[in-house]
Amino acid sequence: MIEALLFDVFGTVVDWRTSLIRRFERFGRENGVPADWAALADDWRGEYDPAMKAVRDGQRPWTSLEHLHRESLDKLLPRHSLNGLSEAQRQEFVLGWHFLDAWPDTVAGLNRLKKKYIIGTLSNGGVRLLTDMAKFAGLPWDVIFSSDNFRCYKPAAEVYLGAAQLLDTAPQNVMLVAAHNYDLAAARGHGYKTAFVARAGEYGPRQSRDFKAESDWEFVAKDFEDLASQLGT
Amino acid sequence: MIEALLFDVFGTVVDWRTSLIRRFERFGRENGVPADWAALADDWRGEYDPAMKAVRDGQRPWTSLEHLHRESLDKLLPRHSLNGLSEAQRQEFVLGWHFLDAWPDTVAGLNRLKKKYIIGTLSNGGVRLLTDMAKFAGLPWDVIFSSDNFRCYKPAAEVYLGAAQLLDTAPQNVMLVAAHNYDLAAARGHGYKTAFVARAGEYGPRQSRDFKAESDWEFVAKDFEDLASQLGT
Repeated sequence: MIEALLFDVFGTVVDWRTSLIRRFERFGRENGVPADWAALADDWRGEYDPAMKAVRDGQRPWTSLEHLHRESLDKLLPRHSLNGLSEAQRQEFVLGWHFLDAWPDTVAGLNRLKKKYIIGTLSNGGVRLLTDMAKFAGLPWDVIFSSDNFRCYKPAAEVYLGAAQLLDTAPQNVMLVAAHNYDLAAARGHGYKTAFVARAGEYGPRQSRDFKAESDWEFVAKDFEDLASQLGT
Repeated sequence: MIEALLFDVFGTVVDWRTSLIRRFERFGRENGVPADWAALADDWRGEYDPAMKAVRDGQRPWTSLEHLHRESLDKLLPRHSLNGLSEAQRQEFVLGWHFLDAWPDTVAGLNRLKKKYIIGTLSNGGVRLLTDMAKFAGLPWDVIFSSDNFRCYKPAAEVYLGAAQLLDTAPQNVMLVAAHNYDLAAARGHGYKTAFVARAGEYGPRQSRDFKAESDWEFVAKDFEDLASQLGT
């Protein structure tokens, strides 16, 4: 019996790419700074996995995503001829990851699912980032589980098993909802139920994978409203 | 600048005593089991602090409140001539702590405060207990912080400092709201702002303290609606 639905956040719940680009473009207009803002967003996200991997592989001690985001930004700005950004502006850019817009079906779907299940995050984002985002985007989480809680990043086992333990239930009673097949594969490997929701526009023109379910996940849904219907909520 | 309001839960947010007694009485009626249910509730709560103290003082390893509740119940039942309770009934009794009613002003006050601040729990209850309770009582938390997250019990420093760290802010930007002076004193000792809300009926006729603020807490409020008004929300 599924008691809780835990959601991957970046890409699955929120449209980080469009949100960031819109935010950068507004910054560019207001400050008269030209740049290829879409390329900056894509490159920044491109640094995400390698940065976490160094932590996951034990090459460096636990480092929060907030810190990794800042490191990656500082590294990328010269390549985008944006090295003139001030300290305050860099902080504002990093904070942009806290204020991302939900996909159009997200809030309605979550509100339906919340009536029957515990709904929560299972994200590599930080607790503060996820809390700020929920308030900004109106995400009605019952509980927030973050890399911060376990001091490691998905797909490390501790994240999936730690969340089930905090929910005082077996992994079999928890379902991960994600737009990424690798995340679902890890969740299933640790006993979770799995639901795939395609977000084919997540990476824009650079998207190269996760166009469809790559395994026999328990549920495959078009969006959160469809998932809610399939789950009878 | 206060960014987040964290709330003690048992007694401050929910009326555990009336809720438990009502639940026990219903059980007694439905199962033809007579007992002094108010005394059982009071005695059970009486075991709460000594049980946590053994963990806090390092006399035993980390033990969840769920487990402590069950131990205390098993210890008390013979004294109340209730040793005939089955395993399933004992589990149901322990689960009673997940389904407590809010004080009449709680939900309206929290909804007002949530508009301006991050609102969350800072409770010795477990994550699952706090999540179940929020759904049951309609508590609109942004984030849940529990003894489970820090593997220790208030007033241990780790709880107050750990929550501020997860919120990625200084303790000075967090305010604890509690009906218990000892909790506020510990929070202030670790840099928190403090707000006292009197819950003079929490312990029923046995109540012996916390009738009023015993220090110059930043805010002293009649209830959560009054606190919301004082905070301009």
